[in-house]
Amino acid sequence: MPDCQLLNSILAGKVRRVTSATSSNTENVVKTLTAWAQKFESTLKDMLTAESAVPEVLDKAVRYSILDGGKRVRPFITTRMCELCGGTAEEAAPAAVAIECVHAFSLVHDDLPAMDDDDLRRGKPTCHKAYGEAMAIMAGDALLALAFEILAARIPQPATAAAAVAELAKGCGWAGMIGGQVADILSENQPPDLALVNKIHRYKTARLIECAARLGAICAGANQTLTQAAADYGQQLGLAFQIADDILDLTGDEQQVGKAVAKDANAGKQTYPAAVGIDESQAAAHQAAKKAIEALEPFGTDADDLKQLARFVVERNK
Amino acid sequence: MPDCQLLNSILAGKVRRVTSATSSNTENVVKTLTAWAQKFESTLKDMLTAESAVPEVLDKAVRYSILDGGKRVRPFITTRMCELCGGTAEEAAPAAVAIECVHAFSLVHDDLPAMDDDDLRRGKPTCHKAYGEAMAIMAGDALLALAFEILAARIPQPATAAAAVAELAKGCGWAGMIGGQVADILSENQPPDLALVNKIHRYKTARLIECAARLGAICAGANQTLTQAAADYGQQLGLAFQIADDILDLTGDEQQVGKAVAKDANAGKQTYPAAVGIDESQAAAHQAAKKAIEALEPFGTDADDLKQLARFVVERNK
Repeated sequence: MPDCQLLNSILAGKVRRVTSATSSNTENVVKTLTAWAQKFESTLKDMLTAESAVPEVLDKAVRYSILDGGKRVRPFITTRMCELCGGTAEEAAPAAVAIECVHAFSLVHDDLPAMDDDDLRRGKPTCHKAYGEAMAIMAGDALLALAFEILAARIPQPATAAAAVAELAKGCGWAGMIGGQVADILSENQPPDLALVNKIHRYKTARLIECAARLGAICAGANQTLTQAAADYGQQLGLAFQIADDILDLTGDEQQVGKAVAKDANAGKQTYPAAVGIDESQAAAHQAAKKAIEALEPFGTDADDLKQLARFVVERNK
Repeated sequence: MPDCQLLNSILAGKVRRVTSATSSNTENVVKTLTAWAQKFESTLKDMLTAESAVPEVLDKAVRYSILDGGKRVRPFITTRMCELCGGTAEEAAPAAVAIECVHAFSLVHDDLPAMDDDDLRRGKPTCHKAYGEAMAIMAGDALLALAFEILAARIPQPATAAAAVAELAKGCGWAGMIGGQVADILSENQPPDLALVNKIHRYKTARLIECAARLGAICAGANQTLTQAAADYGQQLGLAFQIADDILDLTGDEQQVGKAVAKDANAGKQTYPAAVGIDESQAAAHQAAKKAIEALEPFGTDADDLKQLARFVVERNK
């Protein structure tokens, strides 16, 4: 299965210890990965069709914020989950692009001076550093609206479109990701609290990854059991991902990570290492990855690539 | 028709010259207006159902930004247009609430320091003045997401829900309202230019009012002719409204208008009076109102209240 090779290539290229045998396999599959990533990039570009009314600078700021960067983990999950539930990559494409639009929107707004005040994202200046604060606010807004336009206008079955919009809006909204962002900001400089950090990670990060997985199931018209399996996978993967991110913030290399490090710790953010230390955080990340893998049980070996992704998120060094 | 009385009451209460006969009628119909407005307020509150994950302060900031204020012109148009096209107020309710959510989102973000930097809105401190900048950014984001959640989750027919989401997302997005906001900010301190100000008003203001009207038609399952009539009405009404707003910015009383005046002029904004002077601006506003009224021709006398609304927007003093 090409998608398996794809994920193997990500894993082989990025985990810390790579055997020479895997390394020899890597070169081939990195080509597969590059090909797939380019294909998604072209899907993304196709769906970012601009109309003439858009001032050119807004068009540029939006494209700057979403194209040519990012791991594309969320759209990959949407696509693969749709396939695992009996759908096709084409059926998942609008939802894959929409989830990446929402992710990009959240990064642009999260980086703003009034929020996390970050200068660097994916190794380049953040949107407001490149285009100014007003443009970054509006580029984020535009990306959020665009996500829903793409779902509603490009998913051919109205019932699927409506279900996808409801899921994404709920997942990214005030009782989802945005609620988590608020909780994150409110908890700055509070004493470390494991229950609170779990809540923040669950909403701020894991909810949108859960959403990515659920959207894949929705696009395939999956039954309740498979949809729940998808949701459980996404939620646990998201938690594993964010705990690993907390650890990288303390231990990572700025150039490799592509954004400022030790930032969360210095800003008095609620993080896993602050609450329970590095060792226990690593154990918790691996535990969440394990649960994510277990959630994929109904899909059997077809889901091996998503299992490898779960291992990857806790083993990555950037 | 109660809705006619309602609009008459708005008109009677707010136009500059009120005859004593109209004035005597006013007291009765203001009661009708208050009753209707309260009914919409309760619909709005019902649909702002919060889940437990929402940090309380976000819930407060969202409610602060949308409840207890505003003329509710957009949801009124959505509701009446749905009724004129053969639908019911109940069928229009999710779209009426959604359009008001998008309007409130746009005001919250537009008022931010990096944007128009306003301290006063509807006679009270703007959201960022009351809750801080980060919370205002996220409250706006939450309102935008909520609009789509409400459309997708509360319109029972999936095809109608999907069409409404596509229309609203397009109307408020980068080729609609947000595009207009960007054009507005980019054109600050440029030489006055009538073509540019028409473009800005058309996208920044009129597009969302057109959207309100179109959503009403969509919720009623209207045919192409009626949908186009609704769109034409909304577009011309929106233009009339914004030109009148430009004039009020120069001639209005701050306490009566409920926000800072002479602000646009001082900020070097593109306005109608700056481009063509006050007299010609008033003529243009009345001309747009006339076109809006003409667009309602297919609806006959049933649309008298929306015609009165078109007169109201150019005659109001706040």
